[in-house]
Amino acid sequence: MKIGVVGLGLIGGSIAKELKLRSFGSIEVFGVDNNPEHSQKASDLDLVNGIIDLDSACQQCDVIIVAVPVNIIERILLQILDKIDDNVTVFDVGSTKKEICNAVKSHKMRRRFVASHPLAGTERSGPEAALINLFNGKKNIICEEKFSDKDAIDNTMKIFDFLGMKSYFLSADEHDKHMAYVSHLSHVTSFALSQTVLDIEKDEKQIFNLASTGFATTARLAKCNPVTWAAIFEKNSTYLSEALGVYIQKMTEFKKLVDSVDVKGIHSSIVEANEITRVLKGIELNKTS
Amino acid sequence: MKIGVVGLGLIGGSIAKELKLRSFGSIEVFGVDNNPEHSQKASDLDLVNGIIDLDSACQQCDVIIVAVPVNIIERILLQILDKIDDNVTVFDVGSTKKEICNAVKSHKMRRRFVASHPLAGTERSGPEAALINLFNGKKNIICEEKFSDKDAIDNTMKIFDFLGMKSYFLSADEHDKHMAYVSHLSHVTSFALSQTVLDIEKDEKQIFNLASTGFATTARLAKCNPVTWAAIFEKNSTYLSEALGVYIQKMTEFKKLVDSVDVKGIHSSIVEANEITRVLKGIELNKTS
Repeated sequence: MKIGVVGLGLIGGSIAKELKLRSFGSIEVFGVDNNPEHSQKASDLDLVNGIIDLDSACQQCDVIIVAVPVNIIERILLQILDKIDDNVTVFDVGSTKKEICNAVKSHKMRRRFVASHPLAGTERSGPEAALINLFNGKKNIICEEKFSDKDAIDNTMKIFDFLGMKSYFLSADEHDKHMAYVSHLSHVTSFALSQTVLDIEKDEKQIFNLASTGFATTARLAKCNPVTWAAIFEKNSTYLSEALGVYIQKMTEFKKLVDSVDVKGIHSSIVEANEITRVLKGIELNKTS
Repeated sequence: MKIGVVGLGLIGGSIAKELKLRSFGSIEVFGVDNNPEHSQKASDLDLVNGIIDLDSACQQCDVIIVAVPVNIIERILLQILDKIDDNVTVFDVGSTKKEICNAVKSHKMRRRFVASHPLAGTERSGPEAALINLFNGKKNIICEEKFSDKDAIDNTMKIFDFLGMKSYFLSADEHDKHMAYVSHLSHVTSFALSQTVLDIEKDEKQIFNLASTGFATTARLAKCNPVTWAAIFEKNSTYLSEALGVYIQKMTEFKKLVDSVDVKGIHSSIVEANEITRVLKGIELNKTS
């Protein structure tokens, strides 16, 4: 089987690496990347069997995986759907789904496309961030499956199975809403935290001397790639804005409690937040299942 | 040497456990806790050689460590200073320092007290959360050292050395300001994040199915103990309010960029936040040094 991976960053690179390394030659992986440095790096790191262009990928590959930033997926996907024939399966791995699904909705080859989102990643980026086992034990989401051919879905799920992921079905709208709250919002809280303390550092040079692991874990996502994440926020701006609105309101309420030194109110607010313990236990369980 | 530990929660319990276990009998550790369940649990877990009352601790112990919530430290500390003689060293381990230092400022035994804050902890609480090696490789802060006798500081630093910590000196005001930004603020960002998503869960029952490790790490601090943390926020309300004000402003600015789908602005904001990478590398280095 020949698989083309378009975009050799963290996600594309990790998929390529794992397919190539673990298939013992039964899968040939071809990389497509318009950044020559990425292509060179991916070759040097042995993530792929070869580098080809998009046209060749459309002609030669059985499966094409689109792993470019979400603001470029639509364009690349339409190009691919224009060029492939009926035997080819195409799926993307973008972190937003609604606008992508809308963009290809009326394409005559829509049914060869499977809208996917493997819930995995790190705050690193580029081919050198590619990791074996990045996906193992985690979830993959497939959206609008009713518009995809059954064999295209089967082919897609087989690849995610191979990566150790379980696939779930969700509407594109629900996907984007949920991601705004449980993923995108987390990133913005890290950005604002980092910016706040970096601002203060201008006057208080030694402030980070007292930072410990609590700060490090809450600020970690601020290391993420600006190109990838600006695109995600662009494509999910409505739901992210809604989530930010609720969040800022919670913060503002908490600040009021602090301003009035309302210790009882602060205590109740923390007890309310403590309820997250139930959820975090679930995440740990999911990781090992 | 006899050491009394007042308050057998996460921090007091961990100090007791480590002193008792690693001193091979050269240190006797006595626990003081007005919660009988905590005392029983600490005995059952073998964290202490015995449970005594505060008066006995003041009479018998060479060093008394105050590890109660920061809103109670002042009262307990004044009681202890009233009762000890000149040979006893007292230090606290509270997460705020300014109000505590002010409360004992004019006490005739002030010089036997050393205001300390070991920068270590987990989001767990109670004697059962006591951990060996919780402190190893981390920093301890000592404030207003000029008001403490040299031998009291030496005795205090010896204990923190024993726990594997390096001690640093900082003014109480600077300590509280820095902690507001690099520790207390992180907690509030986790509370608001947890509350926001828990709110949405009422309508979107499955929302946490999509939560992964990014969410788990940014929300983790929301598991913290409400008694401990409401007290910390009470005692550091001015600086925390200042930090929350800056943070809310950063969040509001980011929301505006999202609302206007200003991709360039979002990109720049993330690049600004990315600068935190420099700092997080430093925290990793500190952990291993």
